[in-house]
Amino acid sequence: MSWKPWAGVFTEAPDPQVEQFTESVSFDRRLYSQDIRGSVAHAQMLAKVGLLTAEECQQIEQALHEIEEEIRSGRFVFRPELEDIHMHIERALTDRLGDVGRKLHTARSRNDQVATAMRLWVREAIEQIDYRLRQIQEAFVGRCERDAGVIVPGYTHLRRAQPVLAAHYWLCYCEKFQRDRDRLSDCRRRVNMLPLGAAALAGTSLPIDRHDVARRLGFVDPETGQEQLLSNSLDAVSDRDFLLEFVFDLALISEHLSTWAEEWILWSSQEFGFLKLPEAFCTGSSIMPQKRNPDVLELIRGKTARVIGDLQTLLVLIKGLPLAYNRDLQEDKPPVFDAFDTVRACLEIAVPLIQQAELDPAAIAERLDQGYLDATSFMEYLIQRGVPQRTAHHQVGRLVRRAMELGISLAQLPFEEIQQMCPEIDQGVFQVLGARQAVLVMQSYGSTAPAEVERQIQVWKSRLAAEKAQCQPTLIL
Amino acid sequence: MSWKPWAGVFTEAPDPQVEQFTESVSFDRRLYSQDIRGSVAHAQMLAKVGLLTAEECQQIEQALHEIEEEIRSGRFVFRPELEDIHMHIERALTDRLGDVGRKLHTARSRNDQVATAMRLWVREAIEQIDYRLRQIQEAFVGRCERDAGVIVPGYTHLRRAQPVLAAHYWLCYCEKFQRDRDRLSDCRRRVNMLPLGAAALAGTSLPIDRHDVARRLGFVDPETGQEQLLSNSLDAVSDRDFLLEFVFDLALISEHLSTWAEEWILWSSQEFGFLKLPEAFCTGSSIMPQKRNPDVLELIRGKTARVIGDLQTLLVLIKGLPLAYNRDLQEDKPPVFDAFDTVRACLEIAVPLIQQAELDPAAIAERLDQGYLDATSFMEYLIQRGVPQRTAHHQVGRLVRRAMELGISLAQLPFEEIQQMCPEIDQGVFQVLGARQAVLVMQSYGSTAPAEVERQIQVWKSRLAAEKAQCQPTLIL
Amino acid sequence: MSWKPWAGVFTEAPDPQVEQFTESVSFDRRLYSQDIRGSVAHAQMLAKVGLLTAEECQQIEQALHEIEEEIRSGRFVFRPELEDIHMHIERALTDRLGDVGRKLHTARSRNDQVATAMRLWVREAIEQIDYRLRQIQEAFVGRCERDAGVIVPGYTHLRRAQPVLAAHYWLCYCEKFQRDRDRLSDCRRRVNMLPLGAAALAGTSLPIDRHDVARRLGFVDPETGQEQLLSNSLDAVSDRDFLLEFVFDLALISEHLSTWAEEWILWSSQEFGFLKLPEAFCTGSSIMPQKRNPDVLELIRGKTARVIGDLQTLLVLIKGLPLAYNRDLQEDKPPVFDAFDTVRACLEIAVPLIQQAELDPAAIAERLDQGYLDATSFMEYLIQRGVPQRTAHHQVGRLVRRAMELGISLAQLPFEEIQQMCPEIDQGVFQVLGARQAVLVMQSYGSTAPAEVERQIQVWKSRLAAEKAQCQPTLIL
Amino acid sequence: MSWKPWAGVFTEAPDPQVEQFTESVSFDRRLYSQDIRGSVAHAQMLAKVGLLTAEECQQIEQALHEIEEEIRSGRFVFRPELEDIHMHIERALTDRLGDVGRKLHTARSRNDQVATAMRLWVREAIEQIDYRLRQIQEAFVGRCERDAGVIVPGYTHLRRAQPVLAAHYWLCYCEKFQRDRDRLSDCRRRVNMLPLGAAALAGTSLPIDRHDVARRLGFVDPETGQEQLLSNSLDAVSDRDFLLEFVFDLALISEHLSTWAEEWILWSSQEFGFLKLPEAFCTGSSIMPQKRNPDVLELIRGKTARVIGDLQTLLVLIKGLPLAYNRDLQEDKPPVFDAFDTVRACLEIAVPLIQQAELDPAAIAERLDQGYLDATSFMEYLIQRGVPQRTAHHQVGRLVRRAMELGISLAQLPFEEIQQMCPEIDQGVFQVLGARQAVLVMQSYGSTAPAEVERQIQVWKSRLAAEKAQCQPTLIL
Repeated sequence: MSWKPWAGVFTEAPDPQVEQFTESVSFDRRLYSQDIRGSVAHAQMLAKVGLLTAEECQQIEQALHEIEEEIRSGRFVFRPELEDIHMHIERALTDRLGDVGRKLHTARSRNDQVATAMRLWVREAIEQIDYRLRQIQEAFVGRCERDAGVIVPGYTHLRRAQPVLAAHYWLCYCEKFQRDRDRLSDCRRRVNMLPLGAAALAGTSLPIDRHDVARRLGFVDPETGQEQLLSNSLDAVSDRDFLLEFVFDLALISEHLSTWAEEWILWSSQEFGFLKLPEAFCTGSSIMPQKRNPDVLELIRGKTARVIGDLQTLLVLIKGLPLAYNRDLQEDKPPVFDAFDTVRACLEIAVPLIQQAELDPAAIAERLDQGYLDATSFMEYLIQRGVPQRTAHHQVGRLVRRAMELGISLAQLPFEEIQQMCPEIDQGVFQVLGARQAVLVMQSYGSTAPAEVERQIQVWKSRLAAEKAQCQPTLIL
Repeated sequence: MSWKPWAGVFTEAPDPQVEQFTESVSFDRRLYSQDIRGSVAHAQMLAKVGLLTAEECQQIEQALHEIEEEIRSGRFVFRPELEDIHMHIERALTDRLGDVGRKLHTARSRNDQVATAMRLWVREAIEQIDYRLRQIQEAFVGRCERDAGVIVPGYTHLRRAQPVLAAHYWLCYCEKFQRDRDRLSDCRRRVNMLPLGAAALAGTSLPIDRHDVARRLGFVDPETGQEQLLSNSLDAVSDRDFLLEFVFDLALISEHLSTWAEEWILWSSQEFGFLKLPEAFCTGSSIMPQKRNPDVLELIRGKTARVIGDLQTLLVLIKGLPLAYNRDLQEDKPPVFDAFDTVRACLEIAVPLIQQAELDPAAIAERLDQGYLDATSFMEYLIQRGVPQRTAHHQVGRLVRRAMELGISLAQLPFEEIQQMCPEIDQGVFQVLGARQAVLVMQSYGSTAPAEVERQIQVWKSRLAAEKAQCQPTLIL
Repeated sequence: MSWKPWAGVFTEAPDPQVEQFTESVSFDRRLYSQDIRGSVAHAQMLAKVGLLTAEECQQIEQALHEIEEEIRSGRFVFRPELEDIHMHIERALTDRLGDVGRKLHTARSRNDQVATAMRLWVREAIEQIDYRLRQIQEAFVGRCERDAGVIVPGYTHLRRAQPVLAAHYWLCYCEKFQRDRDRLSDCRRRVNMLPLGAAALAGTSLPIDRHDVARRLGFVDPETGQEQLLSNSLDAVSDRDFLLEFVFDLALISEHLSTWAEEWILWSSQEFGFLKLPEAFCTGSSIMPQKRNPDVLELIRGKTARVIGDLQTLLVLIKGLPLAYNRDLQEDKPPVFDAFDTVRACLEIAVPLIQQAELDPAAIAERLDQGYLDATSFMEYLIQRGVPQRTAHHQVGRLVRRAMELGISLAQLPFEEIQQMCPEIDQGVFQVLGARQAVLVMQSYGSTAPAEVERQIQVWKSRLAAEKAQCQPTLIL
Repeated sequence: MSWKPWAGVFTEAPDPQVEQFTESVSFDRRLYSQDIRGSVAHAQMLAKVGLLTAEECQQIEQALHEIEEEIRSGRFVFRPELEDIHMHIERALTDRLGDVGRKLHTARSRNDQVATAMRLWVREAIEQIDYRLRQIQEAFVGRCERDAGVIVPGYTHLRRAQPVLAAHYWLCYCEKFQRDRDRLSDCRRRVNMLPLGAAALAGTSLPIDRHDVARRLGFVDPETGQEQLLSNSLDAVSDRDFLLEFVFDLALISEHLSTWAEEWILWSSQEFGFLKLPEAFCTGSSIMPQKRNPDVLELIRGKTARVIGDLQTLLVLIKGLPLAYNRDLQEDKPPVFDAFDTVRACLEIAVPLIQQAELDPAAIAERLDQGYLDATSFMEYLIQRGVPQRTAHHQVGRLVRRAMELGISLAQLPFEEIQQMCPEIDQGVFQVLGARQAVLVMQSYGSTAPAEVERQIQVWKSRLAAEKAQCQPTLIL
């Protein structure tokens, strides 16, 4: 048991069942490259301040890179009794370097070491999610031209409400995912704070230089170039806000995906018939020969539950824990990894699905004039002729009722009957009746007016093009 | 793509990315033995009603058992494009038997097949959890004799309240876990209903005998011997109540474990000093040489969050899904498996920890008379002498205040001073003062009175002994 | 401050802001009648064992009934500084009776008093919910005759799957709500355990008779007539399982309601057109004159979120609390009350909605043969002629594909074309084609076969009639 | 029923039970002033673009202000059949102004109207929470001087770890609450986007000026002065991200409060004895005369559950809802209001509690040298003398073990015994032994080194003073 790095005070070795129960290497091994990056920077700083010699530092760096390569290539052997990825790597280092390896853990604790690796990991995870959100936005913007001019019913309460351009729908999703990107960007600022050097909970009596480590690891404000350090050591090792905020952001992305999935499940049903999903994104039934099911969309909707559950786990986990570090916090990683993997997979599969699904304009158009989608623009026509809104609303309501009873559209009502209810009208009323007309008369900022939608499409195109000019993140997690 | 069992109506093969996204075999493979058991019973019934010949049935049975053995021994090859464990097994069967294999899926759908396998699995999972809860109860009851006579402070609001026997604490946990066992037993009744034969959602036009399958698979009422069948095919394929109820029961077990873990973390702290955890259940710090941390208890407490998160996932998953089956439901398995694995692991590690931890009676006794644990029994002494409870409460409160100011215990107050406040007393008051006395005077049913606790210990011993006489479940999941 | 019943040991009065923050009377006042019932039984027992005189007991009983009437009629004055409903009532008692009132709190604590009142309340709440679930079942069974013979598409993955009788849908909901009722009945057993007499946490040294109180308050096993007491005083004051289990049961009811609400929102949309909601259950739009929105159904679906949130609150609340009572538990009541009120309101509004909505058989029938709902029964026809299921599935799949391309139904395919794909058929195949035929050929237990559905309807009618013969609960909460 | 503003198309009046079930005025009435502010701005814009005359606008403004005053003073009569606060106000307006009142709802819908009111409300709610967080920070910073020089044990795993200054603890909480404030500030940017003018879901055909409304209502970027408008009408009426983000931020605040509450519950227990809570923040027991319970802290901890539950409600509510508005969203308000009220109340009560609690330096000091808090600084002393960290860790661990067995502190070990284990030491080792010394030798940035803590105190003082110079928000919600 002497190899346990903390065994000095113990007289009894851990029970193997305990080792199995407490190990985390089965899931935290995916932090290996972040851990090594953190250790290299730490070693370089130690050398800078004289706690390691230059040669010791170089030996450590080289050995760590070898270990990294060994893990990457799958040759590294993991053992539950070595607890976590951090101990595995340090042990491998000591196996190689002896006393030099035993010096690496100077002026740090696993508490700040884990927090550092996790922050590096989340920083990259944010980049990746952001990149995929951009791809989704591009996919939606890309549809806008393909679906130019297609008018679909807009819904409230799942009842036909007013007609809108299909492109208006696509841009709505761009807006939602843009807010997600903004939130991730805000989150990144709070993630990008260096905890290393907080040691166990109180800091250290050794003459370390935390600002130096921050620079090496990119914990700097991208605008000012200033190092970003957590300023209180108790906070540095206890803070998990950054994980909760990240997973909350993922949960909202997931919610937006669930809305889109629900909508497309509806739109591609036999009853709606608006949308044809590519067969490659559907599967069949083991018993019903005719079935083509929208499984991908259903799973995306279902996986929202998983991400919400992950967030709940984190919220429950940290409730009522006193300062500073408690082992409960080891359980913070599985939900974070799961939420990230889930949302990443959903975003990846969503992109080609958005691109390849096909609207069925004929089927849509055929029933577009059902549901009295023009009632509101008709009412607004009356308002423009001086009828108070409530009065106009009531008059149109009565006319809709009448048309329903006759089983016809508003435009099919006799002019005289309309005029009797609404004396203010003239023949120009037919300019606003019909779903297509109801779209064309729109004009407000943000509305589905064709010119307004076109303007928004151009805004999105410019914005996304500008971003594309920047480098794509290396997607390594 | 012709091998896809549902490919007839399709012209396009699934995208490999889609296959990856929609596969479930990575987690549902653990249902292989339940699936095979279900298939064997199904085949036997098909033979009974003439939809298979006796020979076909025998071939299928034999092949399924070979496949089961292949999976058990790790020789079976899993491929994401075969979707789930059910398709893997059926495909392997068809590879072996050709047309005979192609007949197995007669009069069933994956919808009822999956539900059946899952119900068989949960039935066994319940047995396992129940078995381990019993072990925990035995561990606590086992402590009662070892800790006989030890009095500890009882707490409310984490303030010393009244003295209780340590055994009284142990039996409190037995009660909580007994309710968990009762809930699991109730849950089992609802789990133990056969869905098979509901087919996709509407039943079948083939002349199957569902009662026969129910008998073969043990879906019978243990008391009446009557077959238990789900009676509505739409319900049979859509119902997931049994999973939610099972995971809720696990969540409550987890809550009870968290209370115990919290308490023992406190009791084993330097400040409380009541309990010594076995070193084999503690780990040290990478930086602080003196630390021995109660990691196992902290992880048990932390893992509660995970089980609660799993329950939340399931609750969110099924909300608002229309009938009957939706693919979202594929996501029901990971949280169920995770909750089960988590709770099982916690229960397993808890047993030896409960057995091996040691109370420190000397340390407990040393400070037992702090906190005025005898104030209530003193008050009750006054009540027995006719003082109204509220008056007695006030008098004792004033005396406690006085003793606090003097830094002494109630028993150390001069008799005259007590008598001045409470004229009803005589020297007999000292019979109820002091923590030990306060325990001895107890008498109500369910109280910490030594005789009462002893009686309860005997009740538990008999109950557990009676159960032990029954067979232990085979723990195979 | 002398009136504070616990003020003896204090020298400083509570801050008014603290009184405001800690009061619970604003929500626990609804427990007044349960509290009084508990106090009356407690007083009667105290008299029986000699801790009160018969006359004192009678005075207390009478005064408590007066106070109850005062509260019921709205004349009682509530004051935050009196904390909770229990202190209000005791204070009012003491104001009336002086020292006699001061004796009521003998041998009990608020800890066991609150738990008792809450258990009495939940017991009644369960009866009420159960009663309303039965009304829902009656409403669905009542529809079965009205909708006799109506065939609707059954769905999986929100795609038309197989045809089923409308009544089959209605009975599916009866099954789900029956499980809810079974769960509530199981829960009731665990609710119906007397905590009173556990006092603060340790029991009492006074010679009380808890079994007597149990009998008076109905904490008895309805079958054996045996008193049901919590047997460990630490458990009695800390246990909140019964609240969590009750709210979990409410959450599952809510989930079932959400499935039904989702389905009827879909069915009543313009696209589905299966169902007409009564106008009295819809509301309009402030701007769109033609809208009639299914608000009641949407709110029922939405309120599921609330009940799930309430359950989460309780799960989080108790996690990691050490024994025995902690003030956190005061927060257990608002979510329980909210979940109950929410589910009760949803159930109440659902009954008339279920009764009054109208299927539109003509609209349903018009498109019933879309979606190849007969494909599975066709496949089963082939199986009965000896074609292996997988082969039959493939053949029918190809034929569906062909029919889709031609835009026709299976029955409209030329016999020769069908026969070319499936040589086993003869003209009898047309007996199984078409949605109506596909229902008629069904035969398995629990299927949508007309005779089977009729049988189930009769089962439900008998069961509900038998229950109705029993008394209706007094709905007083 | 003619008064129902949307009644035109209906022939049947809503059922009173339905009105009761669907009403929201019982909780959304607290939005009255936000609604009126929005309506005034809307009317002014309508006048500007010619949809109202100047006189009509003035009449509307004046009448709305009268109505506002009527509501504020409690004279306004609310009726469930008028649904929500928005209809109440419009109806009161029409009662006063007739046709002029009927014009106000021109070019808007309740969908965008509600979203606007809610955004105005959340904007103010953020200001209030931020203000109270600042007060908490001031309270903690204020303690730093009072508690200057007090050293307390720092904990990990609830085991004594290293000594830290009490002020270091206080500043840790300042850091956590500062992140909360940063998150609220980020959230505010996304809240502060105008939805009005999106109308029902598609925009309007009337010539409105949304930028004008944005300016009037303060939907402007505080830095650039640019109007902030939601740019897609479907998004504007469906987006609830801003509520979820706000409640998530509240949940994290609540988590931080729960950590602090847990810690102070522990610190004020008899076992820890670090902290005396003011009696005015404690309450007693109804049965145990000696009890003084930390109820306020327990309730703060417990109320965390409530806020987490509120967040879960919102997450479940919006999952899987298709675009654009669905009535489910009416249920978004109760959890937002509840989370806000809960967190606000906790913050308000926390401030005086933080200020008035008293550390007990004597009691702390008495046991400060228990737990080997100096082990780590001793190890670092060895590292500075060239011993590899792992070796030093092991040596100190062995020495701690030895000291434990002897029941003494490290400093009480004979120098020779220490030297035998650690040959590198000299008498200077005693400079780092003892808890006080272990604090004094600290030096890293963010550590508990006295100079470092002093520096941080000054940073906080300047920051908070600078903020205080700004105006305090008017706290009106």
